[in-house]
Formats: sequence, C-alpha cells, structure tokens
Amino acid sequence: MNKIYNPKPASWPEILERPPQNLTNIEATVSDIFSEIKLKGDLAVKKYTQLFDGIEIEKLMVSTNELTTSEKEITSDLKNAINLAKTNIEKFHCAQKSEKIVLETSEGVKCWQEKRPIQKVGLYIPGGTAPLFSTVLMLAIPAKIAGCEEIILCTPPNKEGKIEPSILYAAKLCGVTKIFKIGGIQAIGAMTFGTESVPSVYKIFGPGNNFVTIAKQIATKHGVAIDMPAGPSELLVFADETANASFVASDLLSQAEHGADSQVILITTSRRLLNNVEKELQSQLKVLPRIAVASQSLNNSKLILVETNLMAINLINEYAPEHFLIVSNEEDFFIENIQNAGSVFIGSYTPESAGDYASGTNHTLPTNGFAKQYSGVNLDSFLKTMTFQKISEKGIQNIGSAIEIMAEAEGLQAHKNAVTIRLESLKMRENA
Amino acid sequence: MNKIYNPKPASWPEILERPPQNLTNIEATVSDIFSEIKLKGDLAVKKYTQLFDGIEIEKLMVSTNELTTSEKEITSDLKNAINLAKTNIEKFHCAQKSEKIVLETSEGVKCWQEKRPIQKVGLYIPGGTAPLFSTVLMLAIPAKIAGCEEIILCTPPNKEGKIEPSILYAAKLCGVTKIFKIGGIQAIGAMTFGTESVPSVYKIFGPGNNFVTIAKQIATKHGVAIDMPAGPSELLVFADETANASFVASDLLSQAEHGADSQVILITTSRRLLNNVEKELQSQLKVLPRIAVASQSLNNSKLILVETNLMAINLINEYAPEHFLIVSNEEDFFIENIQNAGSVFIGSYTPESAGDYASGTNHTLPTNGFAKQYSGVNLDSFLKTMTFQKISEKGIQNIGSAIEIMAEAEGLQAHKNAVTIRLESLKMRENA
Repeated sequence: MNKIYNPKPASWPEILERPPQNLTNIEATVSDIFSEIKLKGDLAVKKYTQLFDGIEIEKLMVSTNELTTSEKEITSDLKNAINLAKTNIEKFHCAQKSEKIVLETSEGVKCWQEKRPIQKVGLYIPGGTAPLFSTVLMLAIPAKIAGCEEIILCTPPNKEGKIEPSILYAAKLCGVTKIFKIGGIQAIGAMTFGTESVPSVYKIFGPGNNFVTIAKQIATKHGVAIDMPAGPSELLVFADETANASFVASDLLSQAEHGADSQVILITTSRRLLNNVEKELQSQLKVLPRIAVASQSLNNSKLILVETNLMAINLINEYAPEHFLIVSNEEDFFIENIQNAGSVFIGSYTPESAGDYASGTNHTLPTNGFAKQYSGVNLDSFLKTMTFQKISEKGIQNIGSAIEIMAEAEGLQAHKNAVTIRLESLKMRENA
Repeated sequence: MNKIYNPKPASWPEILERPPQNLTNIEATVSDIFSEIKLKGDLAVKKYTQLFDGIEIEKLMVSTNELTTSEKEITSDLKNAINLAKTNIEKFHCAQKSEKIVLETSEGVKCWQEKRPIQKVGLYIPGGTAPLFSTVLMLAIPAKIAGCEEIILCTPPNKEGKIEPSILYAAKLCGVTKIFKIGGIQAIGAMTFGTESVPSVYKIFGPGNNFVTIAKQIATKHGVAIDMPAGPSELLVFADETANASFVASDLLSQAEHGADSQVILITTSRRLLNNVEKELQSQLKVLPRIAVASQSLNNSKLILVETNLMAINLINEYAPEHFLIVSNEEDFFIENIQNAGSVFIGSYTPESAGDYASGTNHTLPTNGFAKQYSGVNLDSFLKTMTFQKISEKGIQNIGSAIEIMAEAEGLQAHKNAVTIRLESLKMRENA
C-alpha cells in the first residue's frame, strides 16, 4: 500500500492518477470484427464465439427450455435474495418516474416536456470468473419500468455452450425479451448492426473488459448510444478517527477483489486509523479466495492522510470516485459538499456491497473520473426527453415579432417568413 | 422535389435515408491538431486560428471592453426580442428543476437520488454565414440555471478578429463566464485539454460543421462528455387536407435554408395538399436570399403521400425527425403515438422557427435519427445524477443476509465479508 502524508495540492494530479490502461491496437481489431459482423451477420458472430470463447454455438438465442431448466438450478435461498434485491431496486427506480412538465411561457404559447422510452435496448453482461446476475437486475429492472419494448441481453457462453443459471433466472424474472449466448466484441457488434438472430438496438448498456469498452465506443460511431464510457471499478473511503478500522478494511477489500486494475483509496484525518486500517487489510486479505487479484489491486491503492475535512473534500471532488464511503462524525459536511461521485455510502453500517446488490440504488456507475460529468444508470437512462409546443393565434401574435427580429438578425429570412406569413394571414382575417 | 406515392414498408429504409456525409480523412486531421494543442496550448490554437480563420489573434479571451462595446452595437429592438426569448427559455428550463427523491426501500435502508451541476462546461457557437446568438441562449441559460460554476464559450473570430456583437451580448446576458475567439477543431481541442488561456471543461455543447462534429467525437476519447452526436438539421411535417399549404411550405423552407445538407420531408394523406405545397415551395423559394442553399437542400427532400395516419406515424417513428410538425385535425393521434422526435410543433400557428427562438423549448436537438435514443438539450444535460444511501444497524440486519447470499453466488467473498463483519459485530454487541 502506498501511504501519503499531507500531500500538497500540486502533487494531487499525480496522486489521483488512475492505473494506466493499455488500449492500444484494440481499436483496429474491433473495427475489423464489426465490419465482418455487419457483412456476414450470425456467421461472423459464431466464428468469433468459437475463436474467443472456444465453443461452437448452433443457436445463439437461449431457448424457453433452457430458461425453465435454469430456474430449477437456483436454490430457494438465492431466489429469495434476488427477490428482495429486485423489490428494492424496483422501488427506488419507480420513484424516479417523472411527470410531464407543462407550461404557458407566454400567453397562447403552451410548451411541455415528456419522457418516452427508448424502444430497443441491449444489455451486456460479462462472463468470466464472476457471473454478474446482479448487473442483470440493475439494467433490466429500470428498462422494464421505463417501458422499453425490446430488452435484449447478450452474455458469453461457457465452454459447454451454457449460460450461468443465475443470469438466466434474473433475466427472465426482470422481463428481458431475448437472451443471446454472445460475448465481447461480437455481442456489441451484433447489437449495433443486427444479425439474422439478434435485433439491432438503439442503446447498449453494461460493463465489460477493455474489448467491450472499445467496442461500445466504436458502436457510438455507428449511431448507437451507450450508457457511459467504462473503466476499472474504484472506491474511495473518507474515514475519521470515529471509524471502525476493520469495517473500513473490509470495504476496501470488497472493491479490490473486483479486478487487478481496481483502485481503492482511503483518505483520513487520523493517523491512528490509517495505521489500523493497514493492519486490518493485511489480516483480512489473507483469508480471501481472490487474494491474488486483491493483492495486485492494493498495489494501485493509496492510504492518504490529510489535515482537514476541507482538504479531504477538495481532493475527493478532484478524484470523482465511482463509489464514495463516508464514515465521519461530520458526515453532513461531506454529503453537502461532494460534487463528483457516482454513489455515496454513509455511515458505519452502509458497506459498498449493499449498493452492489440490494439497497435499491443502481450499481452501474461512472468510473475513471467520469462522475464529473456522467450520471450512473437510472430510470432516465432508458428514456429520452421530447419537447412539444402548441401556439394559438394569440400566441403567435405575442411572440411572432420577436422571432422575426431574431431570425432577421441571424440572416435566416425563411425562418422569419414562416412567422410573417402567419401574422399577415391573421391580420387579413381581422381586416376582412 | 422527390414525390413518393404510397411507399411499401420494404422501401422505407431507402426513402428515409439521410443525405450521405463525407467524414473520411477528417479524423486523422483532428487527432493531429488535438495532439498539438495538448502539447503546445495557446501557441497551437493561435496557429490553427491563423490557418483556418485567416486571422492572427493576440488575446484569445474577449475583453471586458469588447463586451461593453458590443452592447452598444445592438438595436433596442433586438435587445427586446432577445429578452423575450430569454424569459421564455428561462421559464421552461426552470420548470425542469427536480426535487431530491428520497425513499426507505427496506426498513432502515434510506436511499436518495440528487442532481448536482457539472462544474465546468464549454459551449461552442459556430461562426460562418449566420451568427447564431440564439444558440448562446439555448445553451447558456440552462447551464446557468443548473448552477454550473464555469461556463465558457468558444466561437470563431471574423477576418477582423472580432466576434458578432449579438453573440457577445447574449453571452454576457446569460452568464457565460469567459468568451474565447476560437473556432472549429482548435476550440474543441482547447476545451478538452485546457491551455494557458482556456480552462479544460467536463462537457462540451453546441452545433458545428463536420470538423466540429468529429472533434467532439474525439474529445469523448479524452474523457470529455458531449451533448449529443451532431448531424445536418432536418424537419418532417405531417399535414392532412385541413392544413394551409403556404404555411407548410414556409416551414419546409425555413429548414431548407439552414444548409445544403438539410433535409425536409412532408408526409401527407392528401394528394391535393401535396400538390399545393409543391407549388407554394416554388413561389416562396424564389424570393429567399438564401435561395442557393435552400434549392440544394430541397433536392434531398421528399413529399410523401400515404394512405392512413397509422402508416404515417410508423414512417415518422422510423425516421425519428429532429423537428416534427403536426397539422392535422387528428393531432392527438400523432401526439400520443410519436415515439421518436426531438421537438414537436402542433397546429397551424406553431412554426418551427418559434422553437428555434422564442417559445421556450430548446433548439439543440438530436438529428440524423438520434431522436430514437438521445434527448435534446435540457436542464438535466447540465446536471448529473448521484445516489446516496444510509443504512442503519436495523437496516443491515434486514438486507444483510440477501447481500451475503448474492455476493457468494457471484464468487465475491470480500463483498460478502464486508456485510458479515458488520452483522457479527452487531450480534456480539447484542450478546454482550
């Protein structure tokens, strides 16, 4: 662990630097595979599934039969846990529904704003060591509440050509319309262009490795929207002398086990806590099954001592953490002044893993400093805003002349004409 | 004008195709200029301003003196018009403010969602033939309402090294914090990396030509967000036999004059209206100052006759127009069923130019079919959503075991531990 004591602001950029990501040369590979998928559809998708996942898939879409079987393979304990999580996530995202905003801006000028669902969305769930069925909940539940018509899901098959039953169970439970055994670049490509089996979608959501990250970036060039740019997961804890060092260490480790490139940071005003957390980290680390991953990630990580809460919050806003834990007897100061964070966890009994699974908030959050300008996934991520206006005869008489003057000043005569022709027609009628 | 009668759905993709854009080879140029700006700052910005705008600029930032002078160069008529527009835009965007959403998802598990401003935003206003001070209003007003701290604006200087007084006036009026005489790629590059004069920003807004479009796309690779991908402006009118053909023609032309690559489409259920609009277009076109641009744009444009309103709305949702005008005695059918459109204009006295300037809605809208998944600029574009959670001892006892089960099933032991350690500590305390 790197320990840093009272860093000067000039050194912040260096201290706050994220672990470097090696994305070189991936882009050309992704572009090539995209071209092939656009041209050859399923054939190309199957070819790359064989190449990358080492399995020949005949039917890309998961069958009803497979869905039914999967349900039997889940313990009732896990089903109950998933149901509780689903209830909380549903409650929190339902509460985000917003009403139509209607206004008369000038007399006779009625304007309103309404949100309507994105009709077709695609969810990507990574495979690999952890079967992230929780991410299925986090993406499919708001998509369903928003009213998206087509909610498809892609996730890589294992060596037997199967998908983790928990992923299938969660997908079915949350209203996913079609599930495909497709991973990585080929999944993002298939959802971008559409193939014989896979419908093209308007927006793609979900985490993934560097290949998926770049593929999503390239998908945007082809007119598909994405949830947000991705990056390795990260956690920043601010804890003062009132914090429980073993709780804090357990949170730091829960983030560290995600991947070797995860980053965890402790900022504290207490040297004693810093030392205690360091000790706790060592002892809790030893018994973790994912010790190799977590140790590597701890190498990227920092324990930082600062003098004041103000110094701390400035540093934190500059870093813009994905997850931000506050354990302080002055928590209100931090709640009020945090400007840039994905999700905030407050107090000793709010571990980050609560938000990962079951508190109700979404766990798909901006990493890599993107909390400065991106929102985490929420209900609005599955909607788009449209505006409407309806102007009466009186209304155009009220604002028409302002429009004419402005259009003329911008040199746009036809814009002006569209108003003039209406105003004149009304004047003629009045005079008739 | 291309006239199309009762097209079969199979032919829709071809009919709805946007005019092709030639973006080849721009990307490499943009990347090179970005690298130079990152390395050399102001020096590179000035070099490219000389190259592209043909003027040597000494001070990139507009001085207070220039701002004061500009105000005197605006007629009071134009000032009044701008003030009326500002009032309406302000009203409509203020109404979009949303309250904090607070919820107890399980007993003892308090979650909330809050929106906080993006601290630093950059607005780009194109130069060229039309001085788009209206776009200054559309971007700076919501930025100010959102509470963005730094609102900078870049716009290219003219051959005398000056900026149109109307742009300066609008910028000052709406609370822009710094204005720079920088256009095109170099403006987007400067706002992405920051230079000696120009602060870097977290999100860039505003329209522009192909160079600006690609520059914004590349900016996203460097961690900056953008409002939306851009494309040529477009308008689709649905009008039935009750519509006024000369009004409709005036709206189509107001869009056509934007640029040679603009697209306008009329969909109608009335052959008579179609013919009348065609005649009106010819006669109104003749007197336009921008006749060359508008004529070219009309070549990309289509008059389409369909049999039913249902056929019409399906076609329209597939096209996803930036601007959608409805002139029909069954307007409610279209209002209810439009799924994909940037902004909707309803009835005979609601010309599109009302929304461009003064109705109150925003005119920065998704083009190129992006209304399927992107919102137009609105108050939320300048905010990001953050979530918070605070769990009590009782709360973690309520949801803790669900988290443990799910974390274990995902193979994430440290996630489970963060809960277990807390539950055990509570149990020990109870037993003590």
